[in-house]
Amino acid sequence: MEDLYPSRVESKPKITERKDPVIHTDRSKDHESPLSKNQLNFYEKNGYLQLENIFSDNEVADMQKAIFELKDSNRDVSSDKIIREPDHDEIRSIFAVDQDDNYFKEIAQDQRLLDIVNHLLGSDVYIHQSRINYKPGFAGKEFNWHSDFETWHVEDGMPRMRALSMSIALSDNYTFNGPLMLVPGSQNYYVSCVGETPENHYKESLKTQKFGVPDNNSLKWLVENGGGLDVATGKAGTITLFECNTMHASTSNITPYPRNNLFMVYNSVENKLAEPFSGASPRPEYIAVRNTTVPLGKKGTLT
Amino acid sequence: MEDLYPSRVESKPKITERKDPVIHTDRSKDHESPLSKNQLNFYEKNGYLQLENIFSDNEVADMQKAIFELKDSNRDVSSDKIIREPDHDEIRSIFAVDQDDNYFKEIAQDQRLLDIVNHLLGSDVYIHQSRINYKPGFAGKEFNWHSDFETWHVEDGMPRMRALSMSIALSDNYTFNGPLMLVPGSQNYYVSCVGETPENHYKESLKTQKFGVPDNNSLKWLVENGGGLDVATGKAGTITLFECNTMHASTSNITPYPRNNLFMVYNSVENKLAEPFSGASPRPEYIAVRNTTVPLGKKGTLT
Repeated sequence: MEDLYPSRVESKPKITERKDPVIHTDRSKDHESPLSKNQLNFYEKNGYLQLENIFSDNEVADMQKAIFELKDSNRDVSSDKIIREPDHDEIRSIFAVDQDDNYFKEIAQDQRLLDIVNHLLGSDVYIHQSRINYKPGFAGKEFNWHSDFETWHVEDGMPRMRALSMSIALSDNYTFNGPLMLVPGSQNYYVSCVGETPENHYKESLKTQKFGVPDNNSLKWLVENGGGLDVATGKAGTITLFECNTMHASTSNITPYPRNNLFMVYNSVENKLAEPFSGASPRPEYIAVRNTTVPLGKKGTLT
Repeated sequence: MEDLYPSRVESKPKITERKDPVIHTDRSKDHESPLSKNQLNFYEKNGYLQLENIFSDNEVADMQKAIFELKDSNRDVSSDKIIREPDHDEIRSIFAVDQDDNYFKEIAQDQRLLDIVNHLLGSDVYIHQSRINYKPGFAGKEFNWHSDFETWHVEDGMPRMRALSMSIALSDNYTFNGPLMLVPGSQNYYVSCVGETPENHYKESLKTQKFGVPDNNSLKWLVENGGGLDVATGKAGTITLFECNTMHASTSNITPYPRNNLFMVYNSVENKLAEPFSGASPRPEYIAVRNTTVPLGKKGTLT
């Protein structure tokens, strides 16, 4: 398969234009979307969108309870799907919750979410990756700038930019407790990063990403060429959608306020994974789903 | 001299009430202050205050130019007064600029600033410490939570809480480029920290503070007991005043935006340094001025 978005192969970084639409349903069909024209415009221009009040207060409270029940039940479990803090044993993330847990499986295919995602990706979808992130007070570490797509393309073999991330805030996100920072407009450019990908890079990259990190000059160019920087704050329950190539990062959280979220990546069924473009072995199934069967939300086909 | 604020002597942290006023001029004399009653109320309640438009645009531009002229002229200078980034040689701070540089000496005793500071501290004042902080894009490191007074008391022998810090922003401070975070109301409590102070601690603490850092429980208590957290943003030229015991921190700056400021600590002439309460040797004069001669702004006595 042709590599439309090469990265980690040259000795110098390079910025190229995006070769895929940001919204994959034709804009003449905006009226079919549950999102307003303004919301679609915002997403197309900036590469992200925040949605409030999709979930009721009760639903948010249920999700907040459920993530800690899952955390408690995994306290002593040893599994690759459970990522712990580098310095100590506190659980930082639990992967594949849409596969392993019926409650989160239901959320992943909530029709309100699917209607939005199906429209943006212009097709049926499946979950490429899901996880719960626990960023407790005082302990949440910094995440370097990166495009998720760069990693999913190079390390997982995702061919095109036709996926998006959905982060459901399960604690209040302030400006000061390590919120998601985004570069508006960055989804329109692809930064080819420098350096090869070490084998089994994912084991380290989930803690501290060192490869697939854009160089400072490219990042500066994106910020100056686009709309500067934005910070995704919002009360618990707020949904932040961001396009797979939108550059983002988060700083450490040295405040007492936790920052927890449910994170789900939706990919188009027409954009299923090929062999990783790095030539390395694919990452494990719990990080990057390769064996998809049926699209989300198709009646009678999911158990 | 009696130690009213012991710290780093017990094995458990302790929170005690402040034993000094926050505003040292009687509140019946509010009308004599250049600050409004609302501003004084805010400072007394929260332990900090932001002031805009004290300096003209031209004055701000001059200061912005001057800090980089000083940085350039010190590029190859080896001096204890010049602090460089831990990882590389970029200058992070230059100390004692009010002593070594005539331009910054004038700013330190600008009458507009002195009128405010003299009122808040209720006496004549001198500069306890001054420095320019350069927090360049991508490179500014995190500062742990701390009360400046705790360090000045233990390591420098500052007897009472009768000092304040003035930070003059010399680049625009956003929520995302490592701004100052403050705990409103924390000036009213003194957190006795755990652990002894190593000899020559200052050499490390200017890069990464490890001692004199409040424990997480105490910090949580301050945040929950006070007004949560606040972030001091503002355009270049904005002045942030904060009381010497106000708990503050800043996260790292992973954005391309720099965060530079001129930082000056004013202390009351009636609060001159005694021997350090740690029993260790005093820190050097460029970090903590011991040999004060005449108060700032007294005509004909300063050269």
